Amino acid sequence: MKMLLIHCDYFSYLTTRRTKLAEELPNGCKSCAFKDALVVFVTAEKVDEKNPQKVVVKGSGEIVNVSNKMGIKNIIIFPFVHLSDEICSPDVGSYIIKSIYDDLASLDYTVDKAPFGWEKVFSMTSKGHPLAELSRTIRP
Amino acid sequence: MKMLLIHCDYFSYLTTRRTKLAEELPNGCKSCAFKDALVVFVTAEKVDEKNPQKVVVKGSGEIVNVSNKMGIKNIIIFPFVHLSDEICSPDVGSYIIKSIYDDLASLDYTVDKAPFGWEKVFSMTSKGHPLAELSRTIRP
Repeated sequence: MKMLLIHCDYFSYLTTRRTKLAEELPNGCKSCAFKDALVVFVTAEKVDEKNPQKVVVKGSGEIVNVSNKMGIKNIIIFPFVHLSDEICSPDVGSYIIKSIYDDLASLDYTVDKAPFGWEKVFSMTSKGHPLAELSRTIRP
Repeated sequence: MKMLLIHCDYFSYLTTRRTKLAEELPNGCKSCAFKDALVVFVTAEKVDEKNPQKVVVKGSGEIVNVSNKMGIKNIIIFPFVHLSDEICSPDVGSYIIKSIYDDLASLDYTVDKAPFGWEKVFSMTSKGHPLAELSRTIRP
């Protein structure tokens, strides 16, 4: 799994169109806006299929580490297919991302997960400090 | 070389702090803002050192392909170290990124290159259409 973590002054998104992999949304669309948030762009990879649960635990742990280090309380998990050439099946990808969301939501954070399988417009302003942009590769 | 290409309604950046790899800037800092632009986040990789010039030619060609397909005339080349775990030496990375900029600037585009080796704040709003976010892996 690849993660790109960006500490943002501001982040928002709006779903624009469903793909054939789209998860159902209660209102048929979804938007969110946050100030001072850690946005985690996540690409689950083929190799993650060996042990998705381990990827979830290690990925959630790393997000917690980064958030605590920077004192961030708002986290957005953003499914993003463009960080790897070897992506996993949609089922496993959706499971991993949903499970990371559930892990973080059970802790002391305000967490949002952008919908899986939807095209989205997003807006962001990065913080620009030395640790505002980080990447992580998680292996099962 | 990894490239993440995002078709943006709006993109801007501002240099905030130099690193030890910083290129010199005439005014000691730099900012730019664009509407309707293709932002290309670029990470040059270790393997690119085998033949940097080939990576430049193939990378520039791919950016031209994408820009033409979407009818985009504004391009921002944005050095970004977070798309790979195997980055190349700063000298080669700087050469590749500068050369891609030079290639594109010689064509019929408005092109900007964000400074190499500077921390930057950036703001963006993506377009959100099906091809608004793309990734490419270029090999020498």
